[in-house]
Amino acid sequence: MEPVFVIGVSMTRFGVLGESFAELALSAAVEAMRDSHTLEMSVDRVVVGSQSPEEFVNTGHVSTMLADLLGTVPAGATRVETGPSSGASAFELGSALVASGMAGLVLVIGVEKMTAVERGTASRVLAKMMSYESETRYGATPTALAAMIARRYMHDYGLTRDELSLVPVKAHANGAKNPLAHFQKGVSVEKIRRARVIADPLTLYDCCPTSDGAAALVLASSSVVRDLGLRDQAVRVLGVGHATDYLAVQHRLSLTSMGATVRAAENAFHMAGLRPSDVDVCELHDAFSILELIAMEDIGIAQRGHAIDLVKEGLTEVSGDIPVNTTGGLKARGHPTGATGVAQLRDLVLQLRGDAPKGLQVDSPSVGLAHNIGGFGNNMVVTLLGL
Amino acid sequence: MEPVFVIGVSMTRFGVLGESFAELALSAAVEAMRDSHTLEMSVDRVVVGSQSPEEFVNTGHVSTMLADLLGTVPAGATRVETGPSSGASAFELGSALVASGMAGLVLVIGVEKMTAVERGTASRVLAKMMSYESETRYGATPTALAAMIARRYMHDYGLTRDELSLVPVKAHANGAKNPLAHFQKGVSVEKIRRARVIADPLTLYDCCPTSDGAAALVLASSSVVRDLGLRDQAVRVLGVGHATDYLAVQHRLSLTSMGATVRAAENAFHMAGLRPSDVDVCELHDAFSILELIAMEDIGIAQRGHAIDLVKEGLTEVSGDIPVNTTGGLKARGHPTGATGVAQLRDLVLQLRGDAPKGLQVDSPSVGLAHNIGGFGNNMVVTLLGL
Repeated sequence: MEPVFVIGVSMTRFGVLGESFAELALSAAVEAMRDSHTLEMSVDRVVVGSQSPEEFVNTGHVSTMLADLLGTVPAGATRVETGPSSGASAFELGSALVASGMAGLVLVIGVEKMTAVERGTASRVLAKMMSYESETRYGATPTALAAMIARRYMHDYGLTRDELSLVPVKAHANGAKNPLAHFQKGVSVEKIRRARVIADPLTLYDCCPTSDGAAALVLASSSVVRDLGLRDQAVRVLGVGHATDYLAVQHRLSLTSMGATVRAAENAFHMAGLRPSDVDVCELHDAFSILELIAMEDIGIAQRGHAIDLVKEGLTEVSGDIPVNTTGGLKARGHPTGATGVAQLRDLVLQLRGDAPKGLQVDSPSVGLAHNIGGFGNNMVVTLLGL
Repeated sequence: MEPVFVIGVSMTRFGVLGESFAELALSAAVEAMRDSHTLEMSVDRVVVGSQSPEEFVNTGHVSTMLADLLGTVPAGATRVETGPSSGASAFELGSALVASGMAGLVLVIGVEKMTAVERGTASRVLAKMMSYESETRYGATPTALAAMIARRYMHDYGLTRDELSLVPVKAHANGAKNPLAHFQKGVSVEKIRRARVIADPLTLYDCCPTSDGAAALVLASSSVVRDLGLRDQAVRVLGVGHATDYLAVQHRLSLTSMGATVRAAENAFHMAGLRPSDVDVCELHDAFSILELIAMEDIGIAQRGHAIDLVKEGLTEVSGDIPVNTTGGLKARGHPTGATGVAQLRDLVLQLRGDAPKGLQVDSPSVGLAHNIGGFGNNMVVTLLGL
């Protein structure tokens, strides 16, 4: 396997934005190429992660459309979709193309424009990633499933409602320092206690927003890194793990552990030759607050049922031993589905380069882990990056 | 780069079918695994090529859905989309995963269920892959663009209407011997001359149908091939080329040559270390009859403007020097968009193994080429397979 490097990164502001799908994608792509000093080079491939542009912006065939607008024609272009983990899956394909020697320079774009549709449409689109027969037809929504999981977790491990609130409190505190985050102000446990209940026990502050945004990365082979003289800012792809679980939550072995995260993490660590204790900074898929705690346990950075202890002790804060979601996570950075996996990797690369936003830089990390969930917990990609 | 082998293939009947999207995909997948003697093995990855299941069958997140139904959980699963070349692009990702060493055994499925929607819906879905600004808003459809190209080609090279008809006559003659083809009866030049005009000069018989269907392949590394003792039926992936062109036809340099085919073919031949004259059998993307002639010229198996000479001399028939679309092509085999690229490769593998349907076997071919078009001529994948 050829070594694969990330040599440039970028993301747009996340939020409810005026820019179009194409404007967001192009903006992120051009900035990632500028960051990697490859603007005047020809890329070998473009890989686009996007969940459903056909439905969110009424546009299909986005790989060619973006290749055309970007000026990367005739390079091959491909769109990858695995629900909300589409960004990380696009990164996986880009990595495989470089690792196989089939490409030397690959542009990976993650993009979603979710807020241009009528109210209710985004929920209907997202519902298509669930099991109609086992879930949707009974009225189950992603938030309802997350609430059920949270309730079970609280029952099994004694987690309290106020303890759970510490997760979004941290997310918002970090997001407040991230100039590109969807939400840039803090919240308190007290405020969450009084917040509108979405699906008991989850309130508004336990749920990520629906966002617009894009992020991009440039991947390169050793020889391209050498030719460009970019070894200093190149971050190595150490491992990629990808795993599925049964589509419907009811068919899984556990409510409080996600098997696909466990397997994806195992595979990524195996490929990297690393262990959970080697990780210095994490980006975890906290679409709902409870999922951050479960991911910490499934990945192996916390003992089962005890992730909240690390949060309470401040260990997952930027200054802690194992910082999690230093730029706000899905909760505060926002969650344009196809963009999230790429944005997580962008933020890890900045951490590893020492270029994180002011007040969010972790002290000299050398290994970062990203965890991206597709579907409702059934299509996970775990990626390890390092210096 | 690790060598990549195709060790099992399958396709369902193509046509207007009663089976669901999932039934088609599962049927093809299971048969490909049976063909490769891997039914009792765990695959490392599942890659699904499908253009728009969200719109054609109101189902999203099909990679996890199929992984669940197939029983391949927890293997990672990914859906790839590049319009009607989604099948070949899925094959490309599967090849990259094996070639990089990231996977040893990969199941590739191409599937589309296009006829379950109301009349007119399929056209609206397919229109999303064109340029709205430059094409769709002026009423241009894929058939209208193909007609314009045919007219220009006839003007430039003196091709007559009756000569063009020889392409679908050959396709239907081959399809008549293919028990899985959408259309299994022959047509004559006379019948085409009297047929309904769809977009002048193209008639009903110049246009591929809208079909349901699925096809699947099993890809394996050298060590898996060795462990399974399958060297005799393993076909080697020699080269994969992928290229784009501008989204709208009006922005391209030529109407009678498709730059993305030229580049994708060059890249595939370069990777394989082969030349056009080395090809023994071809599967070309004849969504419209004129595209078969143009592809022959763009790939380099015919001189510019002279592809029809090979057709008239019978050289592209099964018994000819360079057989093209031996099982009916998109015209007669049918065109479930996401399935086509995989079905082309399935038919090439059968040719190379000597297992083509009765009356369609080419005499001892050793190199096969497949050409899959995405969008209207802007996202092409050319694949070379060999013994």
